[in-house]
Amino acid sequence: MTVRIDLNADVGESFGAWTLGDDDALLPHLTSANVACGFHAGDPTTLRRTCAQASAAGVAIGAQVGYRDLAGFGRRFLDVDPADLTADIVYQIGGLDALARTHGSAVRYVKPHGALYNATVHHHAQARAVVDAVRTLDPTLPILGLPGSALLQLTEEAGLRAVPEAFADRAYAADGTLVPRGIPGAVLSDPAVIAERAVALATTGLITAIDGTEIAVTAASLCVHGDTPGAVAIAAAVRAGLAAHGVEVASFVTA
Amino acid sequence: MTVRIDLNADVGESFGAWTLGDDDALLPHLTSANVACGFHAGDPTTLRRTCAQASAAGVAIGAQVGYRDLAGFGRRFLDVDPADLTADIVYQIGGLDALARTHGSAVRYVKPHGALYNATVHHHAQARAVVDAVRTLDPTLPILGLPGSALLQLTEEAGLRAVPEAFADRAYAADGTLVPRGIPGAVLSDPAVIAERAVALATTGLITAIDGTEIAVTAASLCVHGDTPGAVAIAAAVRAGLAAHGVEVASFVTA
Amino acid sequence: MTVRIDLNADVGESFGAWTLGDDDALLPHLTSANVACGFHAGDPTTLRRTCAQASAAGVAIGAQVGYRDLAGFGRRFLDVDPADLTADIVYQIGGLDALARTHGSAVRYVKPHGALYNATVHHHAQARAVVDAVRTLDPTLPILGLPGSALLQLTEEAGLRAVPEAFADRAYAADGTLVPRGIPGAVLSDPAVIAERAVALATTGLITAIDGTEIAVTAASLCVHGDTPGAVAIAAAVRAGLAAHGVEVASFVTA
Amino acid sequence: MTVRIDLNADVGESFGAWTLGDDDALLPHLTSANVACGFHAGDPTTLRRTCAQASAAGVAIGAQVGYRDLAGFGRRFLDVDPADLTADIVYQIGGLDALARTHGSAVRYVKPHGALYNATVHHHAQARAVVDAVRTLDPTLPILGLPGSALLQLTEEAGLRAVPEAFADRAYAADGTLVPRGIPGAVLSDPAVIAERAVALATTGLITAIDGTEIAVTAASLCVHGDTPGAVAIAAAVRAGLAAHGVEVASFVTA
Repeated sequence: MTVRIDLNADVGESFGAWTLGDDDALLPHLTSANVACGFHAGDPTTLRRTCAQASAAGVAIGAQVGYRDLAGFGRRFLDVDPADLTADIVYQIGGLDALARTHGSAVRYVKPHGALYNATVHHHAQARAVVDAVRTLDPTLPILGLPGSALLQLTEEAGLRAVPEAFADRAYAADGTLVPRGIPGAVLSDPAVIAERAVALATTGLITAIDGTEIAVTAASLCVHGDTPGAVAIAAAVRAGLAAHGVEVASFVTA
Repeated sequence: MTVRIDLNADVGESFGAWTLGDDDALLPHLTSANVACGFHAGDPTTLRRTCAQASAAGVAIGAQVGYRDLAGFGRRFLDVDPADLTADIVYQIGGLDALARTHGSAVRYVKPHGALYNATVHHHAQARAVVDAVRTLDPTLPILGLPGSALLQLTEEAGLRAVPEAFADRAYAADGTLVPRGIPGAVLSDPAVIAERAVALATTGLITAIDGTEIAVTAASLCVHGDTPGAVAIAAAVRAGLAAHGVEVASFVTA
Repeated sequence: MTVRIDLNADVGESFGAWTLGDDDALLPHLTSANVACGFHAGDPTTLRRTCAQASAAGVAIGAQVGYRDLAGFGRRFLDVDPADLTADIVYQIGGLDALARTHGSAVRYVKPHGALYNATVHHHAQARAVVDAVRTLDPTLPILGLPGSALLQLTEEAGLRAVPEAFADRAYAADGTLVPRGIPGAVLSDPAVIAERAVALATTGLITAIDGTEIAVTAASLCVHGDTPGAVAIAAAVRAGLAAHGVEVASFVTA
Repeated sequence: MTVRIDLNADVGESFGAWTLGDDDALLPHLTSANVACGFHAGDPTTLRRTCAQASAAGVAIGAQVGYRDLAGFGRRFLDVDPADLTADIVYQIGGLDALARTHGSAVRYVKPHGALYNATVHHHAQARAVVDAVRTLDPTLPILGLPGSALLQLTEEAGLRAVPEAFADRAYAADGTLVPRGIPGAVLSDPAVIAERAVALATTGLITAIDGTEIAVTAASLCVHGDTPGAVAIAAAVRAGLAAHGVEVASFVTA
């Protein structure tokens, strides 16, 4: 039996004169591209080019939706009314989807970004607003998120497809939650170590927590961070490590 | 033989806490609603509500696309690169279309707004950018604009449908161009007079120019301004006048 | 002995093509004008005109600072980093002050707007960020806010002048807090009743709470809401009522 | 007699999560820092930090004012009404000045950016709008710009100080205008060559035009581009070259 997993990362986050990340080098290592949608990052020309590249490389395009906060890059919680959040997200998905369609592709899934990702782990009203956006626009679109989050729970309750992801470059606590970024050892940077953890997650569903215990993490996708130094090297190492261990790397939307 | 004409106006131009126009009262008189798309006016919640109202009233939804200039309401020429303009417009159409689809409707045509409308009368590169956006996204969408404009000429050359419009509330010069707003008598405000001119335009294709000569104006749609005092009264008078003279008022997209 | 009180309201909140409030009619009734600063409302041309009007009418200009959130009108909590908030506020005060100076005036005080006003009642880090902005820019500027708030407490601890305000058009609970807007009777609309409460606040420092008890409310300024229907009539009634009872209405910055 | 010249470059152009240029390395080589003001680039935290660095390094702070166009980085002509442009510029100068004042410094001069710089060479109404902003806010502030431009001409006619600049890294035509960027050889990149031209400009006021003729260029400041690869190496080479030839490099505002 073939083990299969998806590899996703954030791309398309440049804006006007400002470049962020090395999308050209990162994209070929991915199977799912979380493309920004213009509210927290990404101007239409950047988004269109990113969609063209993803489409050409056979990488699935996801809508990386977020708060309307360019100055904060969507990393600051915004107490937006759920109805407004739903409309904001529908608009973002539609804008990106139109750009993707001009290159023969389309948005294939949705993933919240930054503070919206974090908020929808616990904030039921905002999580429901995200699910409502996808449900009313296109209920065939899966939502990619954190296992155990309110977002994925509400996604399933609404009859939509929830896709859980794991982080090979982040330390886990023994209870399965991520160790907060401020704590020493929370973020890993050695490509070889990260690749090894990616292989373990994909093949055994187990990962060593920060206290040394083995814990189970269910994930259909592995998230690779795109805007860190060494992001491309890490993605390449993870991809190569998975291939070397016979793991098929493929988008969850084609599964 | 039944004479038929469309009645279009700008709606959905409120933004956040700021209200513009009386869409609730204006919409029922229209057959085509030029709904703003968020770059020069219109937040997603406003756009979604406007699409819901238009859809419920059987009014065709058009994408009122414009420059990325909220502070200027899209009324200031912006020398944007054509490739960027194309991407901006694709994104705007897609965002609005997604909101319309959540209410069972869709964007049915495209009309440039404000300074982009004026620029694309003569500015071939920007006119071509608008046409490219529609052509690459959905070549079945008609483009609504000024008769004789570069925009409509390029629309036809690209094999798309060009829909010319006339203005019952604006004075025409003898050569068929609009009298500039600054000149006395350029803008009419008496609903009865405007309705009479609308009937003439629809039934005879003729209108009295500012110097008294009769001129021919080809139009498949009449534009009613939505953000002036008396806009609703004018639209109602035009609609009633057309009905009284046996003119069928219907959207050009259902024709 | 003359009793004296200030009358403040929000003005300058229009943006581009969008008008909000009737500043021309409201300004003459005020002694302090909380002028928006461009981050949640107010474009520079609007702000400049408002400063000119306030200056000509002898009304003190205050910087109505807020979150960077035009789409939400600053009414949504934004979890902005305190250092960023301080810089945002310094910039807003500076921008407004420069516009005021072109008309021979200047910013004379600072008042947080909307969600920032509400947040800084309890959120110490954001309250301290506001105080830091004023302290580092110009420690002679008073801060106008809610009695008992973290903001005013930290203002005083920093050696700055804290100016407490009261609301004649809002119901108070017996513990001196405002009755939340959702509750029936929370917001008053009868100009005569509001004027009577304004006089009581100014002359006795007492007001009847929603349960009928008399409570003490310390206030050097009364806030009149500017963006409600009847705002101008309420401001006029309050001003007239105070005059009829011999209360001197004057800005706290000239006191 | 000592020859003296100023060295200016654009800094403070990062925005939120997006970094542009290497201000830390560039600033020490400058005597005048054109700091962005938030309308086309630069968030308040970036601007504040840049002012602090400039102030600590003894570099004069200039307001790099521009069009309200973040997505276009101020590089697209915007047909803004002159009165609005004046207000926009007053606001920008005030916002930056306030941030500078929190670090014991202040805005010492004004320089238009990008498309506004180019427009005000010929566009009298916009040039006058810039001059009006400076004149009404603080007529002691010099304006830095292109020799022979409408901007500098109107600056002098208004009784303000006009400071002409030259470009050591750009080719000049025989008539003294800059060779447009699209033409081969228009932009120089060899630090040694650029330094040599800088020395010639400073010591002789002459520079070799692209056709080999010697032409006179009057300049009190040399502009070094900050956002190109090699910007820091070029600035360092220019600074060293000037020092080696006994040219005093000093800000024009301290002259």
